[in-house]
Amino acid sequence: MSSLEEKTIATEKIFEGRVISLQVDEVELPNGNKTKRELVKHPGAVAIIALTDDKKLVMVEQYRKALEKTIVEIPAGKLEKGETPDVCAKRELEEETGYDCAKLKLLTSFYTSPGFADEIVHVYLATGLSKKENAAGLDEDEFVNLLELTLDEALHAITEKKIYDAKTIFAVQYIQLQEALKK
Amino acid sequence: MSSLEEKTIATEKIFEGRVISLQVDEVELPNGNKTKRELVKHPGAVAIIALTDDKKLVMVEQYRKALEKTIVEIPAGKLEKGETPDVCAKRELEEETGYDCAKLKLLTSFYTSPGFADEIVHVYLATGLSKKENAAGLDEDEFVNLLELTLDEALHAITEKKIYDAKTIFAVQYIQLQEALKK
Repeated sequence: MSSLEEKTIATEKIFEGRVISLQVDEVELPNGNKTKRELVKHPGAVAIIALTDDKKLVMVEQYRKALEKTIVEIPAGKLEKGETPDVCAKRELEEETGYDCAKLKLLTSFYTSPGFADEIVHVYLATGLSKKENAAGLDEDEFVNLLELTLDEALHAITEKKIYDAKTIFAVQYIQLQEALKK
Repeated sequence: MSSLEEKTIATEKIFEGRVISLQVDEVELPNGNKTKRELVKHPGAVAIIALTDDKKLVMVEQYRKALEKTIVEIPAGKLEKGETPDVCAKRELEEETGYDCAKLKLLTSFYTSPGFADEIVHVYLATGLSKKENAAGLDEDEFVNLLELTLDEALHAITEKKIYDAKTIFAVQYIQLQEALKK
């Protein structure tokens, strides 16, 4: 198969923010023509499918300014500088839900928007949950409500568009698949 | 539960591109404090789980400049101005794969990166595929290789990180779930 690679001719930095940065690259296409690519850089993130002993999914309700909506998501957060995904997953679970976990397993990693962003999300399964005493709190600009949903409640929340994002819909489908494979 | 909404105080437009735009909003948090939100605006997109009569998943191999990688994805593309998701799904399937479909069904819609972007992807199931004569071609800056993978091949491609993005990993898990539910 032919190479599909695009060679960078020039990079123009547009914006350097607290969370993301933006650049426009001029590239040479496989046929020699040139075009521009608008590229968002992101530090990467983790998301945690946290299952209680009675098989409920731990979720956080959160306002998302980008959507102008309050939605329900699995716990998640950005990687801090130099932080490994495993450490980040434990930290975010504690901060957002107050839970510690006995077992933490990486299930998959995926890019969320490969057309314009390099954000990658590492998705973990956390089990053996217990409430942590003196758990670390949320960042000062974070406000969430904690929820624990059965699989049926989570499926209903998807229908109602309360659960509305890729990682959380993936998570609910993952639990659905595990249940189906058991039968 | 308390309101989690963030009120917009000011919007600073940073960039207006061909695909995305970027703005920074100053917001008032639920506790009255202020912070800034970096927000990417995107026109929205569709993605198509296209299943051949012999149960293969139609995929496109594509270079993604944001990742500096060539990955394998389900067919997808941005909504054009005024275009409905259904029309967009038919168009993108034809342009990227040469296939027409007898049946097209919306499975779900999800935001890909609610932390910083409003991109929504509408995911369709397309069946009854047939090669279209004189199919419309790709955009002039698009280059893809067409693949048709069995479920096992797709699962292997995830392990190998050739399939590496949220919508495609969701799609493969969707097919896995349908197979598991049949048994």
